[in-house]
Formats: sequence, C-alpha cells, structure tokens
Amino acid sequence: MNILVINCGSSSLKYQLINMSNEQALAVGLVERIGIEGSILTQKVEGRDKYIIKQPMKSHQDAIKLVLDALVDSANGVIKSMDEISAVGHRVVHGGEKYSNSVLVNDEVMKELEECAKLAPLHNPPNIIGINACKALMPNTPMVVVFDTAFHQTMPEKAFLYAIPYELYKEHNIRKYGFHGTSHKYVSNKVAKVMGKDVKDLKIITCHLGNGSSVTAIKNGKSIDTSMGFTPLEGLVMGTRCGDIDPAVIFYLINELGYSTEEVNILLNKKSGALGVSGVSSDFRDVTSAAAQGNHRAQLALDMFYYRVRKYIGSYAAAMGGVDCIVFTAGVGENSVAIRAEICKGLEFLGLEIDAERNNVSGKIAELSTEGSKVKVFAIPTNEELMIARDTQALTIK
Amino acid sequence: MNILVINCGSSSLKYQLINMSNEQALAVGLVERIGIEGSILTQKVEGRDKYIIKQPMKSHQDAIKLVLDALVDSANGVIKSMDEISAVGHRVVHGGEKYSNSVLVNDEVMKELEECAKLAPLHNPPNIIGINACKALMPNTPMVVVFDTAFHQTMPEKAFLYAIPYELYKEHNIRKYGFHGTSHKYVSNKVAKVMGKDVKDLKIITCHLGNGSSVTAIKNGKSIDTSMGFTPLEGLVMGTRCGDIDPAVIFYLINELGYSTEEVNILLNKKSGALGVSGVSSDFRDVTSAAAQGNHRAQLALDMFYYRVRKYIGSYAAAMGGVDCIVFTAGVGENSVAIRAEICKGLEFLGLEIDAERNNVSGKIAELSTEGSKVKVFAIPTNEELMIARDTQALTIK
Repeated sequence: MNILVINCGSSSLKYQLINMSNEQALAVGLVERIGIEGSILTQKVEGRDKYIIKQPMKSHQDAIKLVLDALVDSANGVIKSMDEISAVGHRVVHGGEKYSNSVLVNDEVMKELEECAKLAPLHNPPNIIGINACKALMPNTPMVVVFDTAFHQTMPEKAFLYAIPYELYKEHNIRKYGFHGTSHKYVSNKVAKVMGKDVKDLKIITCHLGNGSSVTAIKNGKSIDTSMGFTPLEGLVMGTRCGDIDPAVIFYLINELGYSTEEVNILLNKKSGALGVSGVSSDFRDVTSAAAQGNHRAQLALDMFYYRVRKYIGSYAAAMGGVDCIVFTAGVGENSVAIRAEICKGLEFLGLEIDAERNNVSGKIAELSTEGSKVKVFAIPTNEELMIARDTQALTIK
Repeated sequence: MNILVINCGSSSLKYQLINMSNEQALAVGLVERIGIEGSILTQKVEGRDKYIIKQPMKSHQDAIKLVLDALVDSANGVIKSMDEISAVGHRVVHGGEKYSNSVLVNDEVMKELEECAKLAPLHNPPNIIGINACKALMPNTPMVVVFDTAFHQTMPEKAFLYAIPYELYKEHNIRKYGFHGTSHKYVSNKVAKVMGKDVKDLKIITCHLGNGSSVTAIKNGKSIDTSMGFTPLEGLVMGTRCGDIDPAVIFYLINELGYSTEEVNILLNKKSGALGVSGVSSDFRDVTSAAAQGNHRAQLALDMFYYRVRKYIGSYAAAMGGVDCIVFTAGVGENSVAIRAEICKGLEFLGLEIDAERNNVSGKIAELSTEGSKVKVFAIPTNEELMIARDTQALTIK
C-alpha cells in the first residue's frame, strides 16, 4: 500500500508518497508560494529529473489538487490513479493534552483540532486547511493526523508544569508541551534497534538540531522531559529563536526601552538565536563559515549553542538518573561533524568518549563513540514522514 | 576593630556589628517599617533580652541614627562610642559590569551606583539611600560597598549572554548577571577549607536555597555560571518567583488572556513559584507541612523544586566537565533534611551518595555524603554579613 504524507505550512506544503512494502518514498515534493504570486510545485523521484510545475494556486486545495495530478501524471507521475493512495497522514503541530497518540480523522477530531489551534495560532490553522482540502478531493480515503506534541504527553507533571499559579494550567492549559515529538520518537526507537536493545531498557537523550532545535530525555521509551515548552520558543539557541532567557528581559524591553509586546515577540522569535548573536545568518553553516574566518560574534553564537546543548544533556542525565545513549539528528545533528564534537567536549565525566574518526560522518546511521565509551553516541537521520506513514498505516489497516 | 554591616531595603534595614578579631557579631538588628506608621527597631545581643525601640522613623537616615544610638546605648548597647566603628560595609544588589569586586566608597563610585540602579530599579535605590544616610551621620568613617553580582563577573561570555541581538548587550547591558554572589563565594571558600583543599583545585556546585534561590557552578574558585539572570526572576522555583519559563507564556497572557504587562510582571515575581503552584504559601516549611497532610498541589510544588535543582546540578556538572562537591546553604539548604535528600535522589550516576544519618543535621557545617561518595555533599551555613565585613576590613586597613 502507498501512503501520502502531507505537511502544510501557511503558504507551503511538503509531501511524500511512501510505498509501505519497503518504506521507500516513491515521490518527494514541495509546493511553495500557495496563495502568493509565483506558486511552484517541485517533485523529485529517484533516478529522474525534477518535475516542476509553475501555475497559480489560490488555495491549499488548489495545491493538493496539483500534488495529486503530479503523482498520477502519465509522464512524470509514480502511480496510475488516486486509488493507489490507501491513506493520507497529516502532520499537525499541536495536539494539546487531548492527543498522546495519532488519530483517525473524523468530525469530532476536526473540532478538537480547532480547539488546539488556540495554543498554536501560527501552526495549526494551515494544518487544518490542508486536511480539509484533502478531504474535499479524496472523500473516501482515510486520513490520520500525527501530532508533534503527542510523544511528549508522557512527561510527568513536575516536568511539564511551570511554576506559575496552578489555575493557569487548569483553566488555560498553560504548560510545557514540547515539539519535534515524531522525530524524537523515531530516532529513539531506531537507536535502540541499532544497539540491539529494547528501548524500554534505555535512558536516551535525543538532540534534534536543525533550524529549530530541541533535546528530549527518553526513559524506558517515554519522553520524560524536553527543551521546547509551551511553544517552540523555549530551550536551545535556535536559528532565530532565543530559547531560554530571563523572562524579566521582556519587561525591561517594554518598560525601559519602549518596545511594544508585538515587537518583543518578533524580536525573540525571528531576530534572535544564532542570527541575533552572530549578526550573520540563522543558518549554522553560514555561522560556522564566518566563525572560521575569525568573526567573533559568529564564534560566540556557536559557543553558546554548544554550551547550551551540553548543559541540557547534563540536566537530562540528572533527570533520568543517568544516560545510556545520546543521539544527534536533524540537519545540524546528522551532518555537522564539528558541532557534534564540540557539544561532547567536557562530557567525559559521564563516561562518554567520542571517536574522532567515527564521528567524521554525515547523513547516515553511525556510532560515534569509542568502543569503550560507557555512554554511546549515535548519529541517526530522522524520518518524520516515515513515522507519520507508519502511524497512518497502523490506524487505517482494517 | 569593629565593622558595621548594613543591608538597606526599601522600608527595612538589617545590620550587624562584627568584631573582626574573632569574627563574631556583637549585635544583630533589624529596622522595619521605615517611613511607614509603626516603625520598629529590634536588636539582639548574645545572652541578653531583645532591645526593641518603637518610634517614628521618617527616613533611612532616621533609622541609621537610631541604629547607632542602639549600638552605643549605655544600658543596651555594645560599644561606648561611634569611634569604635572602624568602617561600614554596605550590601548593594547590582554592580553591573563595572564591579567584579567590592570597592571603597567615593564620589565616583556613588555616581556609578546610580548608573547601575537602572538595572535594579527595585533594589539599588534603597541601597544608595542607606549609604548616603550613613555618610551624613559618619562623615569620617570609611565605607565599602559589596555587590551581590560581583562574584559572577568571572562568567564567560557564552554563559552570561542571552541569544538575543548582540546589540542589546553592547548598548543596553542586557545579559545574565547573577545574584547571591556574596553567599556563593563564602560557602565555596568555606567548603574548600573544610575539605582541606585549595578552592582553585575544585569544581563546586553551590545551592543557595531560601525564599530566593540560586545555584552556581564554581570552577577553580570562579563563578562560571549561575541560575539567576538579568534579574533574580530566572532559574529555580522560588518562594513567589516562577524561575525558568517559556518566554512565550508572557505573550499568551497579554495577547490571549488580556493581562497588562505590569500584571504579568507582578504575577511572575510575586504570585508564582511555590506559592503559585501550591496555593498554600511561599514558605517551604508551610508547603512541606501541607504536602505531608496530602495536599497534591503542595507536593507538586516541592517535586518541581527538587526536580529543577537536580537538573541544574546535572547541567552545571556538564558545564564544568564534572563536579567534586555540592554545597547546600541558606534557610532551606542549611535546615531542610528532607529537601536535601530529595534533591540528591537520582544523582547517584555522578558518583554521589548521601548518608541519611549524616544528612540529619540543621544549621551547621556538616558533610552529608558517605565516606565512599566520589562527589562530596556538604551543608555550609552562609554568612553574607561576615563576607561583607571581611571585604570592608580588607579595603579599609591602611
């Protein structure tokens, strides 16, 4: 069976059609500038040239129509008809406290998603639009939603609560939710397999390091803490997000420096992180290049990034009472040899030793620690789409 | 020689007169309700009844005048004349980046303190008023200011910077300063002595746990990181302060729940922490009692408090590349057997083992870890006043 995986942003849409018999993607595509002039669809199929369609797309429904056309296109497609799509899996950012697992779409679920959108006003609405557009075009195909927050719903109260009046949690759902759950779940299960162990016997720290980054403590297969919080703003130094900061800085910016609340919100989400510190770029590759050329602020952004990941690793080892294995994943985590090495510097007290030669690897599964290292370190490429497809298959097979 | 130590709050003033030949306090006093109806001075002298004076005090100068009168009072005093006070040491909360050490008061210093007051608008102004009042009454007595932030000025840039645009640091001094420095410095030096080691050879984590709480990583005698930040709001779960939180919670409270900036500021500083979570009290003794009677929210406040201290210990072990010794100090840290035991649970992976019998101690210097524990754990009563007196003596002896 083939499963279509869809990840809708506000003006973009990523998709993969995955053949579940071998878990390989038949086609991988991206639609950009939906509802904006210059709409474009790009589809890649292994061994073929890129298939590009430039035509106006007013809505997500237009975009999904075009995706389906591209998939069944006689010259450039990969299937003969839409009947070959058994189910659709949708990524949804926020499932609130309602969803600790993926779920089959029905009317009640759609209503709940609208509720959750209050907590993720930037992310959930385009996700919902995508599901509705798909339902309109494929009314008889079962659909599943997979939440970024679901894996973290196992966190205990002491980890997910903030030390603010308890009523703000009970009445307004203000708490840590955590994100990147699909990725953290995927790589933690994968690393257990690679180690030949049961994930239920392991204490794992997964470092999903990309443009947005988060670290998760996974004990016995369950997320018990994670660095992102109520929103993806908390935690590590990210591309443009500040991560952890004294909340009083916000009051100072507003009261003493005359910023508006909205300006501070934009400052901390869009102009901070590696970009704000380095002044160079939000992309760690650019920041690394600048640092190599002697740019002090770029080096500082890297040092702050390493340091904060390292501190979270120590913190989560303490949270779990130790750690068996550390996993690096996502763009930076899978590919940057130097960044992984720098993060692990100073963690030898945990019984962790990186093998420089083994660490010299990009974009594939690899053990990076020495044979004798008590704490194992791995690079594991993440695959959120496959995880979504697997959940979709599991929930739609009769 | 005797040194008078003064700690001025907005409507209160704490003082000690310390005999430096044996470092013992001759008198310890507190003035409350300065400038408010019901002003009162309470002075304690070892082996005597409390000496209480109730009389209107319009200003800090009135209060300090009365303190001096109480110290030289023929029946209740401890010295014959003001000439027996060789110097005065003042606690000042914020020394900004200017002061990494205590300093003798002169006109330039007074001007700098006014500058620093921008960063600590609640705390520095009463400190400054106290110094000026003292100078007016004792124009020929040398005075020293000792800063809460000074000890932390050794933090490296990667630890004290926030991941926000670098210009906000360079132009507006927004960075982590840290507080309780006098206490962290005192107990770290003390524990090294107790261990018979040079503080320069140790990695120490000091946990100052009281109504306000902070943890500091001290490597080779220098603070390299601390949990309080730009203000004392960041870090641990405190009596009424929230500590670490997703900054986006502030935007949610303002944009979605209709709070004003000032209401959120008050909420996070005065209505959060142990008080906000438990709904019972900001005092950990009350919260502990309530939890013992089965109050879920009180237990939760404690669990969150333990958990966050434990995570900071792990984090700072990672920051220093290991830890030799953990110190508990201040009201809660010196006295609460149960809280220390709970915090250390799960830290065995660091090579730390608490001895339940040794830990059963309050308010005195004690080693709490077992003989074989690789990481040593100590309770060390703090003495910020003595530290201030020592710095004052060092800077005023000709």
